[in-house]
Amino acid sequence: MDPQTLPLAQYLFKRLRQLGVDSIFGVPGDYNLTLLDHVVPSGLKWVGNCNELNAGYAADGYARIKGIGALVTTFGVGELSAVNAIAGAYAERAPVVHIVGTPVRASQESRSLIHHTFNDGEYERFDRMQEHVTVSQVCLSDHRTAPMEIDRVLLQCLLHSRPVRITIPVDLVPVRVLQSQLEWKIAIPPAVPQPQAEEEALAYVLERISKAQRPMILVDGEVRSAGIVEEVDNLIKMTEWPTFVAGFAKGLVDETLPNVHGAYMPRHKPFVDSCDLVLCFGPHYSNTNTSIFTLIPKAESSILFEHTSVKGGNEVFRDLPSKYFVQQLTKRLIGSKIPTHKPDAAQFAPGPLPAIAPTDPVSQKAGFWRRLSPFFQPDDIILAETGTPGYGASEFTLPARARVFKPVTWLSIGYMLPATLGASQAQRDIHAPSKNPRTVLLIGDGSFQMTAQELSTIIHQKLNVIVFLFNNDGYTIERCIHGRNAAYNDVARWRYRMAPALFGADEEGEYASKTWEIRTWADFEKALGDDNLKNGKGVRFVEVFMERFDAPEILLGLLESQIEREKAQQ
Amino acid sequence: MDPQTLPLAQYLFKRLRQLGVDSIFGVPGDYNLTLLDHVVPSGLKWVGNCNELNAGYAADGYARIKGIGALVTTFGVGELSAVNAIAGAYAERAPVVHIVGTPVRASQESRSLIHHTFNDGEYERFDRMQEHVTVSQVCLSDHRTAPMEIDRVLLQCLLHSRPVRITIPVDLVPVRVLQSQLEWKIAIPPAVPQPQAEEEALAYVLERISKAQRPMILVDGEVRSAGIVEEVDNLIKMTEWPTFVAGFAKGLVDETLPNVHGAYMPRHKPFVDSCDLVLCFGPHYSNTNTSIFTLIPKAESSILFEHTSVKGGNEVFRDLPSKYFVQQLTKRLIGSKIPTHKPDAAQFAPGPLPAIAPTDPVSQKAGFWRRLSPFFQPDDIILAETGTPGYGASEFTLPARARVFKPVTWLSIGYMLPATLGASQAQRDIHAPSKNPRTVLLIGDGSFQMTAQELSTIIHQKLNVIVFLFNNDGYTIERCIHGRNAAYNDVARWRYRMAPALFGADEEGEYASKTWEIRTWADFEKALGDDNLKNGKGVRFVEVFMERFDAPEILLGLLESQIEREKAQQ
Repeated sequence: MDPQTLPLAQYLFKRLRQLGVDSIFGVPGDYNLTLLDHVVPSGLKWVGNCNELNAGYAADGYARIKGIGALVTTFGVGELSAVNAIAGAYAERAPVVHIVGTPVRASQESRSLIHHTFNDGEYERFDRMQEHVTVSQVCLSDHRTAPMEIDRVLLQCLLHSRPVRITIPVDLVPVRVLQSQLEWKIAIPPAVPQPQAEEEALAYVLERISKAQRPMILVDGEVRSAGIVEEVDNLIKMTEWPTFVAGFAKGLVDETLPNVHGAYMPRHKPFVDSCDLVLCFGPHYSNTNTSIFTLIPKAESSILFEHTSVKGGNEVFRDLPSKYFVQQLTKRLIGSKIPTHKPDAAQFAPGPLPAIAPTDPVSQKAGFWRRLSPFFQPDDIILAETGTPGYGASEFTLPARARVFKPVTWLSIGYMLPATLGASQAQRDIHAPSKNPRTVLLIGDGSFQMTAQELSTIIHQKLNVIVFLFNNDGYTIERCIHGRNAAYNDVARWRYRMAPALFGADEEGEYASKTWEIRTWADFEKALGDDNLKNGKGVRFVEVFMERFDAPEILLGLLESQIEREKAQQ
Repeated sequence: MDPQTLPLAQYLFKRLRQLGVDSIFGVPGDYNLTLLDHVVPSGLKWVGNCNELNAGYAADGYARIKGIGALVTTFGVGELSAVNAIAGAYAERAPVVHIVGTPVRASQESRSLIHHTFNDGEYERFDRMQEHVTVSQVCLSDHRTAPMEIDRVLLQCLLHSRPVRITIPVDLVPVRVLQSQLEWKIAIPPAVPQPQAEEEALAYVLERISKAQRPMILVDGEVRSAGIVEEVDNLIKMTEWPTFVAGFAKGLVDETLPNVHGAYMPRHKPFVDSCDLVLCFGPHYSNTNTSIFTLIPKAESSILFEHTSVKGGNEVFRDLPSKYFVQQLTKRLIGSKIPTHKPDAAQFAPGPLPAIAPTDPVSQKAGFWRRLSPFFQPDDIILAETGTPGYGASEFTLPARARVFKPVTWLSIGYMLPATLGASQAQRDIHAPSKNPRTVLLIGDGSFQMTAQELSTIIHQKLNVIVFLFNNDGYTIERCIHGRNAAYNDVARWRYRMAPALFGADEEGEYASKTWEIRTWADFEKALGDDNLKNGKGVRFVEVFMERFDAPEILLGLLESQIEREKAQQ
């Protein structure tokens, strides 16, 4: 073979490798088997999943930690099973590359009635469906342009931090393409200075800052997709202004800094409303990320730093990629007079924890989430599933470099367990194995049932994952919203602590299945102090029993109004 | 309240009830909770699933037995998770009604940035995606026309025997509509006679019959969706012609009739090719339903009876709904001279079974599938998942009224377990509980892992299901096709017999978790003779160990060619 060429499949996988994909997820299928032959030779690790939805979620979790993630599915049945995960990656900006193995071109061109079609000769239906959930797409068909088409699509993936889709017919997998294109590295092109827009925007922002007496910073989750986590960190340290994070940004800001006060909660609203300038970085103002829009800072105080524009008052300054612009702003602030705003941090501290007795059942009302915070270690990845844990995570005080996954906008229950697989695999790919970093999943029973089998992949890969399973007998979050006693909010009663054993955990050795049961605060103390739980290896599984209607305050409010509605109807 | 009106949600559910939906599947979500309040008051049973893909599969299984099935999901996250199941129902013609609870109209009209959207104000994306996998759709928005819109969509569901989608915004759920429309019953309108086309078609078919010396019948699976199972049964009995079934029709024809010879297998091809007339009812000629197109009868011998047309030679007679047309054909055949064709049935019998010793491991080569046949009872529903069981099911000899689900065209692994839930629930809704009918699932390990959690719903509903789990250490069907030793065809090793216990099976009583292990023919005899397995209650779980490369003959052929390709490359 000509050494200056390589199979198209390897071109694709080597490109992913260059961009930071070390492990790739997916499920084999008739139309991707030969494609999968090229995974390991291209330098990637294959992580096979139990099903494609889980593979999509895993790739998303991987992407949020590693900067890019990928999965391989098969035509029709496989890719459609993954589509909800891809949609979630679109909604919350995870750069996921979805690679789909498709039938040989002869079948497609002759409209052959093969399996995984609708037996009607129509092959483009799935392309049309997937366009709605991806930011760029290509159906590879010609080896001469295939490399540049792949590059085009991957660049859009990085640029928008959103999913893309690449299909490759079985008979194009081994077709040879030029290797030389690999030498050109794919990267988001640097911003080209736009002197007028930039100067106007800087003048606007600097003037607003110079006039401010009570400035603050609100960090939201799109700082990750905009690539400005570091730039914002600099500004927080430089200005020393009071800083809060939206739920989406929990874990993206160093909460050990004295001017960082954790998640922006309803009790902070009077303070935020009293500020005359709120610099909001990476805003993502969905109802669930803003406590039903109540926590959006006042428009007249706000300046929004979005992916490529700056907005304030009635002004919109465009074509200013935020990484570049925030760097320019920081340069201009250095040496200029920055207003000081150092309110008494004590006012932001949560109230005292209620007294508990060791024999009391653990409960959220008695501060479960806050009491869990000391368990976390630097570099932990903590995933709190939609439901009560997702709300609870706002109350965590985080150590340095801890990352958090919280429900943001897509809120597809079942996401967090496979995302834990992906995040933990990314963590392993980043750190030296000796560092043994931990991934901690907090998940309710209803959510766990959605995608439970992926625990077996976590076990199979020997990843260091601690699972807290909250057994509160059904969909408590839905009970709070509506139908608190309705049978449709019940779930089947599982014996959850058997899960590691069914899913293949070792019976002995360092990766042996270890489980804990927490019902009381005494159990809580004992489990959390157990070195096997804190610093063990492999999957550790903790079942926490909670009362049906035990929920964070915000959900209890919904529950109260439901009860009042019921009374009014009687 | 005006007794002549009822809430729109109840109109919808009562319509489903009229059409034969007794149980409805789904998962609660924020945008369907109030909708679910109307399920039980409308006379339906709610069967909550672990996730939406499984709910879709269950509704499909239910529909294939009961004539119609339905599921309720929530906007975005829920409905997209189900889309692969809906697509399968489209491909293989299962009449499934997909009901989606959507946000209040105020949110939609104001393009509010709420959860389960892409945070971009675009609400119609999911409508566009779902159009590709449904035959009719409506987004309800006005109470005056909503009932007739529902009726229109449900009629298309029945007519095409394919899925439809109905969305209902939360705030339209309680809006009152006129009850009177419920008095008009939804039904496929009777065929209107088309004298010319009908006469030409009858003349054509009757002439072909009168000239035939070696006629035969091939029944394919679209006889179910065309509603002609009974009509075809009559013709088979009346003509006494040799009859075979395509895989898709396995279980739709009474195999105890002397002229019915079971599944059309490659070994029957010389006979079928020797016939000068093949009446094929409900043809569905996908590659997987025709042994890669090799079992399609010769065009010059064939007459195809499709949903609304008759095709033979170069003739196509349209606008002749097959139920009506086959009835007319049958009337004309009564009293006319029908050619006789009674070949020696012995030639169709499979060869002798190889000798086995009790200590031999069970194997497909030694006739596992044929030896399983005596286990089946009349009225059983037998589901054989894609993979080795799906091929094996062709070899079953069936008792009267047994129904079979076999892989046909969509071939989405993971389908059969939730479809078992749906089929078994339909069976319970049809039969008196005292009859205690059985549903038997045959499934490989890789497939089981896809949707394993739905076993918990089967347990929760106390359905009578016997599971044969084939543990052959990975995706054997894929190993036969490609990558026989590749790691990507491995799956994590589970302790499968723990599944019923994890998923909540009773520890004692008549529904206590019962499991069996089969490794040898002695184990096989013992388990299959156990009255607890044959006639017990609830879930019975049998783990059958098979060697990695043990597969039906057709797959072994693929494996052989793979090994030869490897040798050639060395």
